[in-house]
Amino acid sequence: MLELRLVQGSLLKKVVDAIRDLVNDASFDCSATGFSLQAMDSSHVALVALLLRSEGFDHYRCDRNISMGMNLNNMAKMLRCAGNDDIITFKGDDGSDTVSFMFESPTQDKISDFEMKLMDIDSERLGIPEAKYQAIVRMPSTEFARICKDLGSIGDTVVISVTKEGVKFSTRGDIGSANIVCRQNTDVDKPEQATTVEMNDPVSLTFALRYMNSFTKATPLSNQVTISLSSELPVVVEYKIAEMGYVRFYLAPKIEEEEEETKPEV
Amino acid sequence: MLELRLVQGSLLKKVVDAIRDLVNDASFDCSATGFSLQAMDSSHVALVALLLRSEGFDHYRCDRNISMGMNLNNMAKMLRCAGNDDIITFKGDDGSDTVSFMFESPTQDKISDFEMKLMDIDSERLGIPEAKYQAIVRMPSTEFARICKDLGSIGDTVVISVTKEGVKFSTRGDIGSANIVCRQNTDVDKPEQATTVEMNDPVSLTFALRYMNSFTKATPLSNQVTISLSSELPVVVEYKIAEMGYVRFYLAPKIEEEEEETKPEV
Amino acid sequence: MLELRLVQGSLLKKVVDAIRDLVNDASFDCSATGFSLQAMDSSHVALVALLLRSEGFDHYRCDRNISMGMNLNNMAKMLRCAGNDDIITFKGDDGSDTVSFMFESPTQDKISDFEMKLMDIDSERLGIPEAKYQAIVRMPSTEFARICKDLGSIGDTVVISVTKEGVKFSTRGDIGSANIVCRQNTDVDKPEQATTVEMNDPVSLTFALRYMNSFTKATPLSNQVTISLSSELPVVVEYKIAEMGYVRFYLAPKIEEEEEETKPEV
Repeated sequence: MLELRLVQGSLLKKVVDAIRDLVNDASFDCSATGFSLQAMDSSHVALVALLLRSEGFDHYRCDRNISMGMNLNNMAKMLRCAGNDDIITFKGDDGSDTVSFMFESPTQDKISDFEMKLMDIDSERLGIPEAKYQAIVRMPSTEFARICKDLGSIGDTVVISVTKEGVKFSTRGDIGSANIVCRQNTDVDKPEQATTVEMNDPVSLTFALRYMNSFTKATPLSNQVTISLSSELPVVVEYKIAEMGYVRFYLAPKIEEEEEETKPEV
Repeated sequence: MLELRLVQGSLLKKVVDAIRDLVNDASFDCSATGFSLQAMDSSHVALVALLLRSEGFDHYRCDRNISMGMNLNNMAKMLRCAGNDDIITFKGDDGSDTVSFMFESPTQDKISDFEMKLMDIDSERLGIPEAKYQAIVRMPSTEFARICKDLGSIGDTVVISVTKEGVKFSTRGDIGSANIVCRQNTDVDKPEQATTVEMNDPVSLTFALRYMNSFTKATPLSNQVTISLSSELPVVVEYKIAEMGYVRFYLAPKIEEEEEETKPEV
Repeated sequence: MLELRLVQGSLLKKVVDAIRDLVNDASFDCSATGFSLQAMDSSHVALVALLLRSEGFDHYRCDRNISMGMNLNNMAKMLRCAGNDDIITFKGDDGSDTVSFMFESPTQDKISDFEMKLMDIDSERLGIPEAKYQAIVRMPSTEFARICKDLGSIGDTVVISVTKEGVKFSTRGDIGSANIVCRQNTDVDKPEQATTVEMNDPVSLTFALRYMNSFTKATPLSNQVTISLSSELPVVVEYKIAEMGYVRFYLAPKIEEEEEETKPEV
C-alpha cells in the first residue's frame, strides 16, 4: 500500500515536465524515505535522478519498497488534467498493474480520479558516488535556460569555462560564434538573482547543447540552478525542489578533438 | 429588406465561432421574430440550433421571411475584420446573391463595408419537440469545456452520469481511465460559478467526446452551460445568449455495447 | 574601424525584424553620417531603404566608409540573444570578414560577444529622387497593419484611394469584397492616434497586399506610418525611427487591367 498526498499538486506536474523531454519510460521507486527515480535518456548519454523526500509530502505512507514503471508522457497527460491549485493524491498497490491519481479542487467541489496503467521496465540503479568538483556555479535558472537556448541557435556544443571572475559559455557554428560571460554577483537585492562561483581549479569543458536545453525544462522547479564541473566527471546540473529534494541531470563532457572533427558535417 | 444592428458586435463573432467547428455551410433564417439557424454537422450526427430574438438587436427590420445560405468560415473571416468594440450592421435583400456587413468603430473614424457572396443550400427545418428531461445539469461553461478537453486526452467517449449529489464524467482509453465528479454547489459568491442538478431520475449516458469538444467552442457566449439528459433523447447542450436567445447543440447518446465493440480498433 | 553603441539596443532588433521578411541578404553601408541600407526584395519588386543617423547613436565612430554584406536572418538570430534592456555595441573592421555584436546587461553582470560572418554581396545603390506626391496619408501604424492583414484574408490586392475626407482601402476576392474607410481625425487626445490626409489631387492606386503585409513588419518601430502616393511613382510607406532616421518601403502600383486579367487564376 502506497499513498502520497501533496497539497501543492502542481509541483508533481513540474517534476514530470522536467524529465519527460529526456526520458519516455522510467521506473519510480518508492520507499519509506521517499519517492525517487533514476533513468538514462534513450541514447544512454545523459542520466536524470529525482528525489522527493517523504517529509516533503503532506501525507506519506509506503508499507514496503515498490518499483513502478510509468510512461512519462501518459503521466503528464493525466497530471495536465489537474487544476493548478488542486491537491494531488497518488496511490499504488503492490502487485497491481495500475496506479491512481486523485485531484481535489481547493473547494472540494470537483474530485477527479485517474487510473494509469503501469509498464514493465527493466531498470538497474547506478550508484552515483559523491564527488568533489573543481568548480560549482550557482546562477538564476532562467538565466541559464536563456543562455542554453540562445547558444543553441548558433551552435551545437557549449564550452563552459569557470574562472574566479565568473563563468563563460561559448559556442561556434556556421554563422559565427558567441561568448557569454556571467560575472559573480552576490550583492543583489534578491538572492535568487545571485550568481556565485565556488572554484578550486579553473575548468573548461564542452557539452552537447541539445542535452543542456533538455535539462532546462526543469527551470520552473527552482529559481536557482547549480552546475558542478570537473574534468574527469560528468557535469551535474541540479534543480533543488524546496524542502523536498531535487532533480539532477548528469552529462559526460565531450572530448574537444571529437567535436572539431565532426564539425564539417554539421 | 433586412437590416440588423448590433452595438455589441463582438457577439456575432462569438456566435459564428461557436458553430463553424461543427457546420461549414448553413442557412440563416430571418423573420420578424428573430434571426435563427438550424443545421446538422457534415456527418449528420449532431444538430445545432441558434436563435437571436429581434428584441435583442439595437435595430431590427425584416420586411419578409428570408433564408440566406452562408459559408461560416467565410463569415468568420469577415467578422474577424471587425474591431472588438465595433458596431455591426448586417444587411440583406430579397433576391440578392450577397449580404453585407458594416463595421463602425466607436469613434466613427473607421467604417468598413464587407460584401459576402451567398450560397445555395438545401435545408429542411426539423421540428424539435419540447421534451421533459430526466436530469438537467447547470454548471460553469469553462468547467465543462475543461472536463471535455481533459477527458479527450484519455479516451474517445464520455459517460455522463447524474445523481442527486452531482454529475460524473467518465472515460477510458489505452493509457487508463478517468472519473471526474462535480458536486452540487449553489452557495457560491458568484452565481456563474454554481453547479446545480435538477433530477427526476438518475441517468447515465455515453457520448462521443469529439462532438462535445466541438460544442464547447460556444463557451465564450455564456458563463453557464445547461446539459439536459434523458435515456431516449439526444442530449441538449445549451449556451444562453444574454437577453437574446441561445445556441443549442443536440447529440444522440451512444449505445454502450457499440462502444465496447469498437474499442479494440482504437 | 567602426564602432556604434546603442543604449536602447532593442531598436536594432526591431530594425532587422522590419526588413528581413522582405530581404534575406543586404549590404549595410556605414559612413561618418550614419548607418544605412538599400535593398530590393528577391523578386525585385519592392525596395527598402534604412537610415540610422550617427547623431542617434550613443557612441558613433566610423573612420572610413565601409560596406558590409549581412544575412538578415543570421543577424536576427544573434540580436534575439540580446536582452530587451541590453546596450548593444556593433563593431567592424575594414578588411575583416566578420563583425561583432556586444550585448551588455544594464547591471553589467552579463556580457555577451557575438561574432558574425560577413557575406559578399553585389549591391548597387539607386538614387531615389525626392518627389512631390499627390497625396500623403499619416495614420496609426497598428491601424494600417490591421487593415492590410484584414484585407489580405479577402483578396490579393488593395486599392488605396485618397480624397479630402480620408483614405479608402478596398479589395475583392472569391468570397466577396471589402471597403475600409478611415476618416481624417486630428482632434484626438493622443497625437499618435491621428489620421491626417494631405492632398493635392485625389489619387487611387492598386498594390499587391503581399508586399504591404511585409512592410507592416516595421510597425513596432513607430506609432505612425506615412503613405505617400502619386500616379506615376512607387508608393512610399515610411516608418520614422525617433530621432534617428527611418525605414522606407517603395512599391510600384499595379496596372488595374493586369489585375483583372490575372484574377481567374487565383
